[in-house]
Amino acid sequence: MADPLILTLSCEDRPGITARVTGFLFERGCNIVDAQQFCDRTGAVSVDRFFMRVAFDPIGTGPDTLRAAFSKFAADYAMDWTIVSQDRPRRTIIMVSKFDHCLVDLLYRWRTGELNIDPVAIISNHPREATTDIDLAGIPYHHLPVSKDTKADQEAQVRQIASEADAELVVLARYMQIFSDEQSAHFSGRCINIHHSFLPGFKGARPYHQAHERGVKIIGATAHFVTADLDEGPIIHQDVERITHADSAADLVCKGRDIERRVLAEAVRLFVEERVLMNGGRTVIFRA
Amino acid sequence: MADPLILTLSCEDRPGITARVTGFLFERGCNIVDAQQFCDRTGAVSVDRFFMRVAFDPIGTGPDTLRAAFSKFAADYAMDWTIVSQDRPRRTIIMVSKFDHCLVDLLYRWRTGELNIDPVAIISNHPREATTDIDLAGIPYHHLPVSKDTKADQEAQVRQIASEADAELVVLARYMQIFSDEQSAHFSGRCINIHHSFLPGFKGARPYHQAHERGVKIIGATAHFVTADLDEGPIIHQDVERITHADSAADLVCKGRDIERRVLAEAVRLFVEERVLMNGGRTVIFRA
Amino acid sequence: MADPLILTLSCEDRPGITARVTGFLFERGCNIVDAQQFCDRTGAVSVDRFFMRVAFDPIGTGPDTLRAAFSKFAADYAMDWTIVSQDRPRRTIIMVSKFDHCLVDLLYRWRTGELNIDPVAIISNHPREATTDIDLAGIPYHHLPVSKDTKADQEAQVRQIASEADAELVVLARYMQIFSDEQSAHFSGRCINIHHSFLPGFKGARPYHQAHERGVKIIGATAHFVTADLDEGPIIHQDVERITHADSAADLVCKGRDIERRVLAEAVRLFVEERVLMNGGRTVIFRA
Amino acid sequence: MADPLILTLSCEDRPGITARVTGFLFERGCNIVDAQQFCDRTGAVSVDRFFMRVAFDPIGTGPDTLRAAFSKFAADYAMDWTIVSQDRPRRTIIMVSKFDHCLVDLLYRWRTGELNIDPVAIISNHPREATTDIDLAGIPYHHLPVSKDTKADQEAQVRQIASEADAELVVLARYMQIFSDEQSAHFSGRCINIHHSFLPGFKGARPYHQAHERGVKIIGATAHFVTADLDEGPIIHQDVERITHADSAADLVCKGRDIERRVLAEAVRLFVEERVLMNGGRTVIFRA
Repeated sequence: MADPLILTLSCEDRPGITARVTGFLFERGCNIVDAQQFCDRTGAVSVDRFFMRVAFDPIGTGPDTLRAAFSKFAADYAMDWTIVSQDRPRRTIIMVSKFDHCLVDLLYRWRTGELNIDPVAIISNHPREATTDIDLAGIPYHHLPVSKDTKADQEAQVRQIASEADAELVVLARYMQIFSDEQSAHFSGRCINIHHSFLPGFKGARPYHQAHERGVKIIGATAHFVTADLDEGPIIHQDVERITHADSAADLVCKGRDIERRVLAEAVRLFVEERVLMNGGRTVIFRA
Repeated sequence: MADPLILTLSCEDRPGITARVTGFLFERGCNIVDAQQFCDRTGAVSVDRFFMRVAFDPIGTGPDTLRAAFSKFAADYAMDWTIVSQDRPRRTIIMVSKFDHCLVDLLYRWRTGELNIDPVAIISNHPREATTDIDLAGIPYHHLPVSKDTKADQEAQVRQIASEADAELVVLARYMQIFSDEQSAHFSGRCINIHHSFLPGFKGARPYHQAHERGVKIIGATAHFVTADLDEGPIIHQDVERITHADSAADLVCKGRDIERRVLAEAVRLFVEERVLMNGGRTVIFRA
Repeated sequence: MADPLILTLSCEDRPGITARVTGFLFERGCNIVDAQQFCDRTGAVSVDRFFMRVAFDPIGTGPDTLRAAFSKFAADYAMDWTIVSQDRPRRTIIMVSKFDHCLVDLLYRWRTGELNIDPVAIISNHPREATTDIDLAGIPYHHLPVSKDTKADQEAQVRQIASEADAELVVLARYMQIFSDEQSAHFSGRCINIHHSFLPGFKGARPYHQAHERGVKIIGATAHFVTADLDEGPIIHQDVERITHADSAADLVCKGRDIERRVLAEAVRLFVEERVLMNGGRTVIFRA
Repeated sequence: MADPLILTLSCEDRPGITARVTGFLFERGCNIVDAQQFCDRTGAVSVDRFFMRVAFDPIGTGPDTLRAAFSKFAADYAMDWTIVSQDRPRRTIIMVSKFDHCLVDLLYRWRTGELNIDPVAIISNHPREATTDIDLAGIPYHHLPVSKDTKADQEAQVRQIASEADAELVVLARYMQIFSDEQSAHFSGRCINIHHSFLPGFKGARPYHQAHERGVKIIGATAHFVTADLDEGPIIHQDVERITHADSAADLVCKGRDIERRVLAEAVRLFVEERVLMNGGRTVIFRA
């Protein structure tokens, strides 16, 4: 069997898109395995917008041939689209600071085959020793310290590493530095951050301390795309847990680790399975 | 705009079904609003089985014309299928015994427009006074007491009422009588029961007392289709809540009421929105 | 058996409080059924603060005798404290506007005996017809319309009704008017509001529309004490539900109704069972 | 400050226990930090049973002096009781087979200081290479293969290791061998197993496949004490996650790993913090 492919697309809504897209694939002998669509009619924008994800076996047709043909088709609809392999691991850079629970978790899920990533680099603003107990399995570890003065240089190094590794995804796994606007723009749509609060509840620093101070009864974490507007990027996934008055801020930090690692892992899984489509400041998530 | 329609179908999987179904609708000028599909490849059966739900605006084409045309098309695939109105309320019979929390909840959701049902009858084995505080809004209330000797007759009366009211759905809203095999078969696929336990955990009588006795830390409820094999019908929806050692069996009954009513309401919603497809002893649920 | 009593108290922490309080009750022949305590050492305040709830059978001692004796004891510790009947229903006013789902739910739970309240009045800024389908069971319904000019008068009327009914609790069951600072202060610590968002996420008006606009993946509701600072009162209970991109703002409103009514009901239950103690801008909740 | 201590006890209920226990501690100058109690009046047994957990600073009094004094006191009530250090890590043996996700998770939480255990040995029926990627941090790894013929010997070796290491807790972290009745009895009350199903739903082998076959909409995991009656030991903690028709049995196994590891870790935390008291076939859990 040929390598299964995934087509994702979005465009202004028009009658017949589903039929024409599935017809396009059928005519070329492709067998649709899964198809989902969504039309945003919520008036957030002046026109309705259509989103689709199709997983299919291309049978005899090569991906390049399909892409060439679909390119013409897609132009008629002014589509944003991709056709990519379903099974090829996504080349991923993981960025981290001192807290390594998300890093450890991502690497474990990668090893068990649960997360279909290819970790091409780990970048930290702290030395290798900060995560000393972890077996990094030979993944290159780049220690790129950063200060106010060196920030521009350090970000250029990150771009350089990403470029050389041909990285498709950058995961900020509790990377405690804020990207500059340029860096955010550079990695737009392919950089996922885990924010240790249930956005938009507690933006800014020390969200668990804010949550404790406010006396909320549930805390959460948010995985979102990185944008120039900090804490405001399109949300991919969120989860929560119940807390009580007896939990100190330190307890919340501890409980939060569990939420953070599973929210981030789920967001990465959704991304590498091509289940996340951008819809302005929001996302469309096609779950199985 | 014409009344939107919903097509649901299932059949043995074959290449091209999605393309041909959506093509069929496109050729007739219908505009697809939402489409979901699923192929069961889990080997539970010897062949893969394909399921699909399409919501569409028929534009100019009448439902009868579409059904006639689709009928021929469907025969080629030996499909189970329906094409029904999206907006027409489903004629629904609600059956109840002494506990009326699910009845009250369903009626409230009907009145607010949340549940698109048309309650054509309420049937109880207890007199109207058992639910005395509720405004039944003029829905006919049938008191059909039942004993071992009268069970066959009583069930015939239920069928008679259902037949005369042209009922499309029978909801057992904590109806504490067990259907005979004949009755279960008669209402197969259109009778939903709420079981006050997280099946298959505590089958049989007094499940909350069983749960308390066993010392579980989470209880739940299960909405399922009624089949001859009690407590074994295809599951439509389940939900749970956390409990503690301090909850008595009576507390569990009380907490259970909340779970029961929201699980049953959700199952009814899924059913009337044509989101529930039968897959042997299981269900395929196409959520929005 | 005598009517069981509940003692709640808070004071600055000192060694021996638990022993002395339980000893006090033991010496008077009372039998402790349940006792919980909590010491807030989180540094939110300069001194540690101690909280306690004790449920006990007074056996032969009358509540007034106990109160008189405890009063002297409590003065030594500068305690905030109450000794109240466990089983006596709390006289409760329910305030409502157009949306009646919380009102309906509270009345149902009252009728089933789940909520130990005595609904002494319903107050609405809309006429009785706005909630036409509900059987109000003879509870006085006060239609008190309000405008900018009449607000002070209307609030005085509310206080008058509360005073005459000797109300212990005022529940804002989706009452869409904002209390003045005076009104908030008047009902301080005995007025619970349901806010239809997961605070502090979406303060202000139309929170579900805000949530939809932001693209969050989970929505919630918050029951809190009313304070002058709107949306900032001490939180009693919160709950959430998962949503998707396919949910419109209208869908969120609909899903929100379920969360609102169960969050508000749980907060009322906690209050009438004397399980909610105030801790500055936060609460201590002693669950069973 | 002296090492904080935790007193746990259970006995037949009698008036005054709380007052006398807290009085006992107060008289000896101890300062109670946290106290919780529960009386089981549910009629599961012919007499009410009382449970209590008290965390306290002993100030000047040594634990041995306290134990000696409390011993006499406790005899009057025929109490089951312990007084133990709050902060001393519990000597823990982790047993594992091929699946190492729970082992990895426990070790990570140990390293971050979240779990207050002292891992004195890892025992597996598979060789060290089965968990090759993990840094075991120098914890002794015992490969004790087992077959029908060698089971008695192997279990004796486990007891020998536990005895030499003075182990207080044995955690079956997806150890796929069933303890003999003798072994279960030997480790009674100090051996926790993670069962990869939401008991009592799917007992026996391959629970995720059973769950898939049955078509449930929620799966879970259960941490319980090991008893001779497999899958029937007192439940300590449970958690669940929602699944859909699209999840294969393999998907459930994968999703289950997350639930298993967090349920087991929470059960171990509750145990080492002395929050789990046995109540016949059930548990009393005193959460913070």
